[in-house]
Amino acid sequence: MSAIRHALSVKREDDFAAWYQEVISAADLAEESGVRGCMVIKPWGYGIWERIQRLMDDRIKAAGVQNCYFPIFIPLANFEREASHVEGFAKEMAVVTHHRLISDGKGGLIPDPEAKLEEPLVVRPTSETIIGDAMARWIQSWRDLPLLTNQWANVVRWEMRTRMFLRTSEFLWQEGHTAHADKADALAETHRALEMYRACAEEDLAMPVIAGEKPENERFPGADETWSIEAMMQDGKALQAGTSHYLGTNFAHAAGIQYQDREGTQQFCHTTSWGVSTRLVGGVIMTHGDDDGLRVPPRIAPQQVVILPMLREKPEDEELLAYCEQVRAAVAQLSTLGEPIRVLLDKRPGKAAAKRWDWVRKGAPVIIEVGPRDMADGKVAMLRRDRLWDAASGKPAFQFITQDEFAAQISAVLEEIQHGMFNEARDRRDANITRGVTSMDAVADHFAEANTYPGWVEVQWSKPTGAALDAVVEQLKALKLTIRNVPRDAAPADGPCIFTGAPAVERILVARAY
Amino acid sequence: MSAIRHALSVKREDDFAAWYQEVISAADLAEESGVRGCMVIKPWGYGIWERIQRLMDDRIKAAGVQNCYFPIFIPLANFEREASHVEGFAKEMAVVTHHRLISDGKGGLIPDPEAKLEEPLVVRPTSETIIGDAMARWIQSWRDLPLLTNQWANVVRWEMRTRMFLRTSEFLWQEGHTAHADKADALAETHRALEMYRACAEEDLAMPVIAGEKPENERFPGADETWSIEAMMQDGKALQAGTSHYLGTNFAHAAGIQYQDREGTQQFCHTTSWGVSTRLVGGVIMTHGDDDGLRVPPRIAPQQVVILPMLREKPEDEELLAYCEQVRAAVAQLSTLGEPIRVLLDKRPGKAAAKRWDWVRKGAPVIIEVGPRDMADGKVAMLRRDRLWDAASGKPAFQFITQDEFAAQISAVLEEIQHGMFNEARDRRDANITRGVTSMDAVADHFAEANTYPGWVEVQWSKPTGAALDAVVEQLKALKLTIRNVPRDAAPADGPCIFTGAPAVERILVARAY
Repeated sequence: MSAIRHALSVKREDDFAAWYQEVISAADLAEESGVRGCMVIKPWGYGIWERIQRLMDDRIKAAGVQNCYFPIFIPLANFEREASHVEGFAKEMAVVTHHRLISDGKGGLIPDPEAKLEEPLVVRPTSETIIGDAMARWIQSWRDLPLLTNQWANVVRWEMRTRMFLRTSEFLWQEGHTAHADKADALAETHRALEMYRACAEEDLAMPVIAGEKPENERFPGADETWSIEAMMQDGKALQAGTSHYLGTNFAHAAGIQYQDREGTQQFCHTTSWGVSTRLVGGVIMTHGDDDGLRVPPRIAPQQVVILPMLREKPEDEELLAYCEQVRAAVAQLSTLGEPIRVLLDKRPGKAAAKRWDWVRKGAPVIIEVGPRDMADGKVAMLRRDRLWDAASGKPAFQFITQDEFAAQISAVLEEIQHGMFNEARDRRDANITRGVTSMDAVADHFAEANTYPGWVEVQWSKPTGAALDAVVEQLKALKLTIRNVPRDAAPADGPCIFTGAPAVERILVARAY
Repeated sequence: MSAIRHALSVKREDDFAAWYQEVISAADLAEESGVRGCMVIKPWGYGIWERIQRLMDDRIKAAGVQNCYFPIFIPLANFEREASHVEGFAKEMAVVTHHRLISDGKGGLIPDPEAKLEEPLVVRPTSETIIGDAMARWIQSWRDLPLLTNQWANVVRWEMRTRMFLRTSEFLWQEGHTAHADKADALAETHRALEMYRACAEEDLAMPVIAGEKPENERFPGADETWSIEAMMQDGKALQAGTSHYLGTNFAHAAGIQYQDREGTQQFCHTTSWGVSTRLVGGVIMTHGDDDGLRVPPRIAPQQVVILPMLREKPEDEELLAYCEQVRAAVAQLSTLGEPIRVLLDKRPGKAAAKRWDWVRKGAPVIIEVGPRDMADGKVAMLRRDRLWDAASGKPAFQFITQDEFAAQISAVLEEIQHGMFNEARDRRDANITRGVTSMDAVADHFAEANTYPGWVEVQWSKPTGAALDAVVEQLKALKLTIRNVPRDAAPADGPCIFTGAPAVERILVARAY
């Protein structure tokens, strides 16, 4: 068995954080912009986001939710209305105070003191308060309910420590906002959105998640209930990958979202909000990346098949390009996973081997190389990104097959890669959730072992609130741990609470997290 | 012939500006947000924008341009680098000066004086300067060229007087930014984008436009050439509906966008930028709306066919709904204009007649009404939005046809509506361009006639520059006129310049404009 020379300089097991940065750079996903806390999302990274957007948007529309667009600027007064929302958000926000620049007389520009806004505007960190204003205008009677809206937008939360895709000052997301006649209907929507996120994460991103309710201390500012999907990264840490909030009547009271019920009485609406963001791209990297770069699940890959002709900058190239174009056209006629196959013929100048490693690092699911000899034989050399190496030779595991064989199997290969990536990630996740941990000491021991990826532990608790919950949170924080969620489908509690000793009421997942 | 009672309270010919506002409200496209200069785009208006986006994005991708995302915040220093760009844009912009809010001790919030930014950030009014920074990083050699990027984003230009869709402080757009090895290649891209805009406006929006070059005084700040597509609204005014700029090496010098050519010499890139915005929705309204509301061309209609069952809140409704669902499912299997037909079964409670007028005002291309008797006969009542009234009776021109007849013809009907709307707008536009006007006095006379829609005039000019051009611009401004563009395919000049008397070199369009 020969030694494999991987495409990245840092391995996951050596330095996961450095590996993450190297994948982003090697796969050409994004880069620092020079503007504090803001990144530039490059074509391949943005292409993955566009795919996620398209698939999520289809799910959103299928649920009868309608897209709208609301202003990026929110007046300060909106934040002052909802006390707990202020607490949670009013800290680190970008504040617009002027609407004009003038020359400083020294070749530079300064905000014009004459153009100071009477009321500063906040660049939206989230839009509950401004959409609440619209809901108050749009809703009169029970006939107007439920009101189901969503927007795709950029939001800004000033962050001191940023990490690309995971925590940036500006990020892209969708935010669903809905209003309902009663709690039951609003809760049903909260769960519908949660389930939509679970399905999209698992079926589209091939990223297994655990859906459950966040504990009180992790609730969205102003929410009565916050639910999340949590994914396990390859270093065993948790990534909160989407949240769905039942907001009770809190925002309805703040914004005056009322309706006349069938009996003619004025009632406050129950509202929800739910969102996922470009953070999902970070989740895809840390779920599927390997020591050769990114691996993109076929469903969200901007290109599923990349064809690389072995060009030599000679006249014979023309015939080879024609052959490759014929292969491309044939594949483009086929479908996989319910959509036409996305196939790219990469005609850029450069050596095929260098371009191959570009596409390996980017994580295109299938790479096809075609040289003059392959063409003469009517063949192609197929490389699957999920089975990159031939262990015996330590070389890339090319399969030499005829063009017809390739066309006959590519659809199934892509499906197999999609499902294989999910199964691999699910098995790893399942293997790294430790159950039956029955004391805080055991939790501490579990996470104390150096240089291992301890994954998550499931423990039972009595669901303390207020000061008792704060004490639990502090205990965990000392071990750099947090409560991720109460899994929707966990087994019932059957023992004592590991924090209080009282009879437990439910099971929670405890983990380190991004 | 009976009198027709139109659905809007204001007619175009009585007060075009008030009519425009009424269409936006009656078709539920958008509304004021309460945030200065910003609008809320409601589902039907946003749905039209989504359709425009999708179709334009397909065209952009087909040209090999790749989508990216760049920061919303631009450091002041970026604007200080490019002198003419500063001149044009550095005036009315939203300036972020603080990154935190704190309590003012009286229940309110204020920007935290401790959190003042060292360098204020500008909310992007356009992204040449920040994308220029990225291009300077990304481009090293001729092999990296051309670099073709685009972003879909929100931008902010502080506007004192706003009008929904046409001029708002925040708006949505796409901005293409490309870098090339030489002028010829950059100019080719400038023209490719212009032609793409023409094709999208005419084929997708059914909005005829005239593509041509803007005069020097109307150039984008920092551009060597600015080209536009200009559409004629029903009041005869011009709407600049898209622009494409050749930026020479101006931004390349400012940002240091250089490449090594094949001979190893460092060269500055030639760059372009091009954009269209939510302003296009305003163009659709003023091109196609009538005294009954909006009319949406099928290609960009969020729903092309709306089915209205005549529900009576009785048990029989169920059978009627099942029949309508069957009609819907059959239509959803069909295609028109190259895509599956978008069909909605509107099950909301309420009277069918009220809902009909909702959809007429929104401008759905085809409305289908189905009552119990129609169901019994296997029929539907079809109403085409482009042929709404029966002139003889003064009533809506329903056609009663069998379900099979409907299915057999709906695809062709939608195509006919799309093309008919374009032809109608083009004929109106052509009839309202006056040629052969050979003096400024004649121009003044033409536009002086009260209460008419004078359209545009084509005149010949000697293309003065500098102070001579300023004088022309002032002369026109006194008549509230502007030069729209030099049509790409105008006839050659063959007479004297109407401003200078010198031999003319080209023909220009002169008009009032939005």
